[in-house]
Amino acid sequence: MDDTDLAARVHRALLARGQTVASAESLTGGLLGGLLTATSGSSETFRGGVVSYATDLKQRLLRVSDEVVREHGVVSAECAEQMAAGVRDLLGGDWAVSTTGVAGPTLQEGKPPGTVFVGLAGPAGVEVRHLHLTGDRDAVRRQTCRAALEALLAAVAQATE
Amino acid sequence: MDDTDLAARVHRALLARGQTVASAESLTGGLLGGLLTATSGSSETFRGGVVSYATDLKQRLLRVSDEVVREHGVVSAECAEQMAAGVRDLLGGDWAVSTTGVAGPTLQEGKPPGTVFVGLAGPAGVEVRHLHLTGDRDAVRRQTCRAALEALLAAVAQATE
Repeated sequence: MDDTDLAARVHRALLARGQTVASAESLTGGLLGGLLTATSGSSETFRGGVVSYATDLKQRLLRVSDEVVREHGVVSAECAEQMAAGVRDLLGGDWAVSTTGVAGPTLQEGKPPGTVFVGLAGPAGVEVRHLHLTGDRDAVRRQTCRAALEALLAAVAQATE
Repeated sequence: MDDTDLAARVHRALLARGQTVASAESLTGGLLGGLLTATSGSSETFRGGVVSYATDLKQRLLRVSDEVVREHGVVSAECAEQMAAGVRDLLGGDWAVSTTGVAGPTLQEGKPPGTVFVGLAGPAGVEVRHLHLTGDRDAVRRQTCRAALEALLAAVAQATE
């Protein structure tokens, strides 16, 4: 199943439950939103997103705290968690997914390329997945999108079982 | 030249001038931001973006006016103009690009798929390009991104000639 098919499954799962999702993206730069809108009719399940590439936008729009930026950095589980919760509040949506990490090719905050955190906020709270990905910049970004879609699909399905 | 190469040219043109860009996307859903962040080092020129897929987000975050939505619809030059100006204000940036239109396959606001508006806000004001694109949903979205990158590159180069 390719990424677009996976996104279509996410869309159908949300549609069946009358639920919506929003996104907060850093290293993926909008690619995740691109996938969530690849399917015709996606406006029924996708609210929108914030691409908070600059650190000050993570803080100002998504309310990532100064403390998290200072003590954990933007490449951290704490930042992914606050981004997901923040965009869910800002845009409204039953679910929200976030991505932050190092696409490469250079280190960021002393962390190697492929260090990625995916946040997922939903009715029951927020969880974060810590990924160690390999490959070039493009591969890291694509694998991050896939992991975000998989996490979202699993959570949506599980929440209503 | 493929889309990623074109985006790299945009990045280099901005970098040479010490300028930045922000994006406001509707039908492209984040794909434009994905391209603007495909190049290593893009954090130096890309501030971030808003994917304002739902109409209320265009209004609330980007300050698209009720009058524009009511009288022209969200698939309009007026909406593209306000989205570009709005995201430039919200995110900060020398330039801002916006996309709104009908990706298809169905009509939206009575307008056929391929009806697309690309907005460009810069130091000298805002301009809009009206496109009539052909092809399927994916093709329309990709051509929209390309047109936005071309408009941005031309404007950045021209502004400092």
